[in-house]
Amino acid sequence: MSLTTGGPTGDIRPVVWDAATQSVVVLDQTLLPLQVVDVQCSDVATLVDAISRLVVRGAPALGVTGAYGVALAMVQAQREGWSTQVLTDAIDSVRNARPTAVNLAWGVDQVRPLVEDGLAAVLSAADRVAAEDEQANRELSRHGADWLLEKLGDRRLRALTHCNTGSLATSTWGTGLGIIRELHARDRIELVYADETRPLLQGSRLTAWELKENGIPYLVQVDGAAASTIARGLVDFAAIGADRIAFNGDTANKIGSLGVALACADAGIPFVVAAPSSTVDLSYPTGENIEIELRPATEVTEYAGHQVAPESDRAFNPAFDVTPARLVSAVVTELGVAQPSQGESVERLVP
Amino acid sequence: MSLTTGGPTGDIRPVVWDAATQSVVVLDQTLLPLQVVDVQCSDVATLVDAISRLVVRGAPALGVTGAYGVALAMVQAQREGWSTQVLTDAIDSVRNARPTAVNLAWGVDQVRPLVEDGLAAVLSAADRVAAEDEQANRELSRHGADWLLEKLGDRRLRALTHCNTGSLATSTWGTGLGIIRELHARDRIELVYADETRPLLQGSRLTAWELKENGIPYLVQVDGAAASTIARGLVDFAAIGADRIAFNGDTANKIGSLGVALACADAGIPFVVAAPSSTVDLSYPTGENIEIELRPATEVTEYAGHQVAPESDRAFNPAFDVTPARLVSAVVTELGVAQPSQGESVERLVP
Repeated sequence: MSLTTGGPTGDIRPVVWDAATQSVVVLDQTLLPLQVVDVQCSDVATLVDAISRLVVRGAPALGVTGAYGVALAMVQAQREGWSTQVLTDAIDSVRNARPTAVNLAWGVDQVRPLVEDGLAAVLSAADRVAAEDEQANRELSRHGADWLLEKLGDRRLRALTHCNTGSLATSTWGTGLGIIRELHARDRIELVYADETRPLLQGSRLTAWELKENGIPYLVQVDGAAASTIARGLVDFAAIGADRIAFNGDTANKIGSLGVALACADAGIPFVVAAPSSTVDLSYPTGENIEIELRPATEVTEYAGHQVAPESDRAFNPAFDVTPARLVSAVVTELGVAQPSQGESVERLVP
Repeated sequence: MSLTTGGPTGDIRPVVWDAATQSVVVLDQTLLPLQVVDVQCSDVATLVDAISRLVVRGAPALGVTGAYGVALAMVQAQREGWSTQVLTDAIDSVRNARPTAVNLAWGVDQVRPLVEDGLAAVLSAADRVAAEDEQANRELSRHGADWLLEKLGDRRLRALTHCNTGSLATSTWGTGLGIIRELHARDRIELVYADETRPLLQGSRLTAWELKENGIPYLVQVDGAAASTIARGLVDFAAIGADRIAFNGDTANKIGSLGVALACADAGIPFVVAAPSSTVDLSYPTGENIEIELRPATEVTEYAGHQVAPESDRAFNPAFDVTPARLVSAVVTELGVAQPSQGESVERLVP
């Protein structure tokens, strides 16, 4: 029995609070797609380990994890008779479990001021973090689906997506994949091409698994195939997520997104970026100054313990790329749609 | 001692005739980059097995293999007292060891008419097949290097390449990678970005190994990174090979080439296709009717025995894509350079 996949609604929730055991339960994404295993985190050390090993990943999902992590620390403090200082340190250890994950710290900070008000207050606030993310995802998915059907005609569409932007990356439902799920719910999806998304294969491991679980027809392809699949007329639109969206619509997202955007622009099909409004960062006028994280070379030069290149340190491994606004047909948040390639800023997509 | 890498010139030759043992020796490309192992094929069955297991691959390299394979069959026929029919069947088994490899059959057919003239005649013709391929590669590399330095200025350049188009894919030297080697010989290469080239990783396994062996600075990257690396201004030109080039310059090549071409066109840098003139097929007016081979889904969904997608049969795995002539800055053969994106046909690049 998996708490994360067997809830009353059937929705996949990568992180949940288990009231019966007073613990955080996360779906182990490192074992997907072949094993569906929940990891029960009854103490902070176990949760921190799960976060750092990418058992749970995805910006919005980490936000929820951070929020419930504070509650978990309070339960353990009560059980083990911690001092205030030990509790503070434990919460900090959750907050810093992945230094570059802004949302993790954000999730902790959303509920931390309520620690003095007791566990019920913190849990209630953490539930709200999760619920608001889910609501944003469902709303932006409706906006995106409406826009696409308006643009392309009310028919069954063939989609392409990159990386994982579904339930597993969020509280539940998803962003880029959320739009595809909304279209599927309206019987408007014919087929989804899921880029495998090297180096970490979030597409073949996670997105393909979600599509299968949701009964949506799909094919996995290597990232290098995306341009050709689009150019051959096999795709009606692409929908991806975002790590950061600048004022003008320039979008930082998983490496490989830019190539999809270039192919969509060349073929004249919509390239849609979907994210909650919290992803829009108006302090960046353009994407020019967005820092691109460089990840370890071994993610590219090794696979599952096998070395696949002659020298394990000779790789260039940027985690993200920046797609210029001129290639972004639409940015979708819970507040609506803007069309950067038409010169529209994303200013009105934030509260 | 490796016959394929330890020759007098130091050049890597993926297939050679070993006169001392009367056998075909091939470098085992399935063990690269970590092990450099020669496979000595003293009988036809061993050679056919090596071809079918991709121990030797690459269109021109297979042409040479086919030619020497005829000589090997004659040696074995002599040793074992075969009838003419058994010899004919053995030569056919080499010719058909990989049904889709046109060059393998071509190499066999180049020397087969000489079987009645004896082993020396066949070996001499096979040597000529190898020598002519090498000469074509060296000449097209000079043409390509001249054109690039003329176009970009006489300075050290940063290159990007896709798949493997070096010595390992040819008799020796290479085509797309041959141009890069020629520039390196002129001290005009700063750095090479080698796309790993999923699904079979010819870039990280083979191209990176050749670059290392040749002392050329390189970094491997995932295929999805190519567009971003180009857009960020880190690359001066891209050079690739070709499986088939149509009259107008439309080019079929390893999946992922089109994405590189789109990024080069968007960034305004040259996208160069290099191949011997035998790759130009004037019977195709455009690339529209070039058939795209679909390879097994498991190449995408499994890696080194690990399943990386939920269902091993749900993948779209085209082996090639077609880059339209408008994106091809230059096609280079041993006879010179044509610029399809300027409206030039490749007609004058064939004898």
